[in-house]
Amino acid sequence: MNKPSTRPPSGTRDFLPADVARRRHVVGVVEEVYVRYGFAPLETPAYENLDTLLGKYGEEGDQLLFRLLHRRDALARALEKEGTAEADLADLGLRYDLTVPLARVMAEHPELPRFFKRYQIQPVWRADRPGRGRYREFFQCDVDVLGTTSLVAEAEVMGAAAEVLRELKFEAFEVRYNHRELLRGLVRAAGIEEAREAEVLVVVDKLDKITRDAVVKELLERGLVRQQAEDLMRFMCIGVTYDVRPRVAVDDKVLLEQIRNVVPEGPAREAADKLKRLADLLDATPAGPHARFRPDLVRGLSYYTGPIFEIAAEGLAGSLGGGGRYDGLVGMFGKRPIPAVGFSLGLERILLVMEERGMYPELRTGPDVLLCWREVPEADVLRAARSLREQGLSVEVYPEPARLAKQIQYADRNGVKARVAAILGESELRERTITLKNLESGEQRTEPLDRAAAAISAWQEGTTP
Amino acid sequence: MNKPSTRPPSGTRDFLPADVARRRHVVGVVEEVYVRYGFAPLETPAYENLDTLLGKYGEEGDQLLFRLLHRRDALARALEKEGTAEADLADLGLRYDLTVPLARVMAEHPELPRFFKRYQIQPVWRADRPGRGRYREFFQCDVDVLGTTSLVAEAEVMGAAAEVLRELKFEAFEVRYNHRELLRGLVRAAGIEEAREAEVLVVVDKLDKITRDAVVKELLERGLVRQQAEDLMRFMCIGVTYDVRPRVAVDDKVLLEQIRNVVPEGPAREAADKLKRLADLLDATPAGPHARFRPDLVRGLSYYTGPIFEIAAEGLAGSLGGGGRYDGLVGMFGKRPIPAVGFSLGLERILLVMEERGMYPELRTGPDVLLCWREVPEADVLRAARSLREQGLSVEVYPEPARLAKQIQYADRNGVKARVAAILGESELRERTITLKNLESGEQRTEPLDRAAAAISAWQEGTTP
Repeated sequence: MNKPSTRPPSGTRDFLPADVARRRHVVGVVEEVYVRYGFAPLETPAYENLDTLLGKYGEEGDQLLFRLLHRRDALARALEKEGTAEADLADLGLRYDLTVPLARVMAEHPELPRFFKRYQIQPVWRADRPGRGRYREFFQCDVDVLGTTSLVAEAEVMGAAAEVLRELKFEAFEVRYNHRELLRGLVRAAGIEEAREAEVLVVVDKLDKITRDAVVKELLERGLVRQQAEDLMRFMCIGVTYDVRPRVAVDDKVLLEQIRNVVPEGPAREAADKLKRLADLLDATPAGPHARFRPDLVRGLSYYTGPIFEIAAEGLAGSLGGGGRYDGLVGMFGKRPIPAVGFSLGLERILLVMEERGMYPELRTGPDVLLCWREVPEADVLRAARSLREQGLSVEVYPEPARLAKQIQYADRNGVKARVAAILGESELRERTITLKNLESGEQRTEPLDRAAAAISAWQEGTTP
Repeated sequence: MNKPSTRPPSGTRDFLPADVARRRHVVGVVEEVYVRYGFAPLETPAYENLDTLLGKYGEEGDQLLFRLLHRRDALARALEKEGTAEADLADLGLRYDLTVPLARVMAEHPELPRFFKRYQIQPVWRADRPGRGRYREFFQCDVDVLGTTSLVAEAEVMGAAAEVLRELKFEAFEVRYNHRELLRGLVRAAGIEEAREAEVLVVVDKLDKITRDAVVKELLERGLVRQQAEDLMRFMCIGVTYDVRPRVAVDDKVLLEQIRNVVPEGPAREAADKLKRLADLLDATPAGPHARFRPDLVRGLSYYTGPIFEIAAEGLAGSLGGGGRYDGLVGMFGKRPIPAVGFSLGLERILLVMEERGMYPELRTGPDVLLCWREVPEADVLRAARSLREQGLSVEVYPEPARLAKQIQYADRNGVKARVAAILGESELRERTITLKNLESGEQRTEPLDRAAAAISAWQEGTTP
């Protein structure tokens, strides 16, 4: 038999115990904070009907969907057809994000609370070209507040995201914000016609990847006149320095006032006023010290309708997450529009940065105790294990009769480390005791079996029981 | 625009906050027990290479795999071909169980511990016909001990599964066990040739669904002579009563001795001796009071090689989980065979029974506090929320200025219920207090803002702070 490759499919990963421990640590913090902010959990299926997904992520997104091939009769019928096409072969696709499934759930469950605050932490799948930190299966951590246009929702969502990062010990990060209408106003103020707005913003979005001169060059190539391009750059870069620095309290509102005077009357000025109010609200949340108005923040997705945000970390290209207000999307499957504001933290990105910067706390993956034994019946070994477990210890039983030294050595193996070896021999069995060996200090003592947990925790606290 | 259906795809489900709370409660107990038994977590990708999956689950299993359709060029090439077939259209498939991925991981990671005890709780997908309690996306909770042929592994796996059910408050359940070689010995003892063994066992496996007479009838139809069928039934039903009852301590070993005298010398008798030893070991674990030898237990999967087990609950057709020793499978992708014993708990089945029998503890889904407010600045509302959260409370902020009665009413909405309404008005803001309204008793009191959590927990414990 020709043995197939045992590597996980391209763009996916196996998570061994130490990996799972790190992922759960981070997900645990995210969940704890989201719950503290009053968000409730939602989970949706891995795959959706294709007509739910198609057309929601642009043409490129449609191409990145994983489709589930028809089976049996349905497949046979599709293949019999003249000129079989992709659309004939599948009507289900793997989830591409967590927002479209949320929109579907909102339409399906009108009984959900009027202001539904939901969080959702699940994998999504995209048939993208895999690269460093870019996978085909990856987790998103979404929070959304549905049902209100109040700026309190924006502030809470950004406050929760900032609190997550602070609890994970991120320090130098910036919670950047802008407003879609303000961006449009700046494009207008530079004398650029509305029809070119989307195209122009795609170019401006590259400001954190390429230089200002390169952006201007590209804008000229696309047919803007120099004055338009220069004006736009000037507006976009008001108050912007390309680093992540502590925010000076007054900056944002002063900047917003300057921008307000540049943009035309109407929605753009209202947006500037709204952001001034948002700046005040953010000051009341953990996002306060990190918040920074950035007139050049664009965010790719076209569905945003109001404030937009993104979190940048010092020394990291790309963001740790992003979001904004999108009042048009969630109602699309239902009878009425549902205003919404959300934020998505990129779990894989956060894990990568924490890994590279050594930000994880010590996470144990082994059991508390490896139970080693010799010359006693196996049933008595299992009874001792049960007693230790009833004392709250996690216990691995060495499964075979081997030399004691070999058993104890096994306690410290690749990636899984027990803290204590517990030894059960003839005398211990007779006297209902257990010999405990501290694998860090090497210290060894014999204790009554039913007092083992107390003795071990005394060791950990450095006291004598 | 024609709005698509908003129901989740056939055989899948959306989990709203109350559903997630119930699922997490059960998964939490499962994980806690598995960790206590020294199992470490593993997670694998949702999809695998098809050549990893195909041929591992029998012909029917292969047909139930969800395949991921090729994209772009690969799809175009496949469709251009003369007589395109299923195999041309996909080379990836959704995970069908957690055992084959484990086998792949073991071959890929030789650095894993020699006795790898892993647990894995993830969804699997099968394109089966959906029915009551049967889904196309469902969770499995697997534990496996790899690398040892010691019976300690069997006892630990069965002990852990029994402890999970006891912690979930299941009472009348039976941990049934048998041995593949003993089954084969009984078939032989009934004078049935080896070539018919598999076919005969498939019929016998129906004993818990159809009557003994119906089984005999089917065996005769398949060409057994009456004496063979009657003998086989007699052996299979030694000591079996078709109910779930507390086990009498000596029964199993007496039965095993009887059976031992029926089967031919060799592997079948060794199996009987092994099960007698297992009976002793099980007595030392939480599975003890539930363990019961069942000569008619077959278990469908052909890959088992030694002891097999299954958990049955009173009044429930089908099982809560099953497992056994399968020494041939895990090594299949690698260079050497790896002995293995495992057990898989059926999460969906457990949840269904707990739901039907009202076995869930009270699980809260709402926040501790709904913060209601009037005639105060929104920034001050957010500051109060922050203070409450810093005191460890989960807090939802009512997002809009509405009548206070309306806000308070919102605390008890569909499926999400806050315990306390906290009210921030002008006087509270001035005096740095908060008015707390106990939504169960209706009691109301005003407390210093920074003492709110203490006041609330005093309420819960029924004491006066």
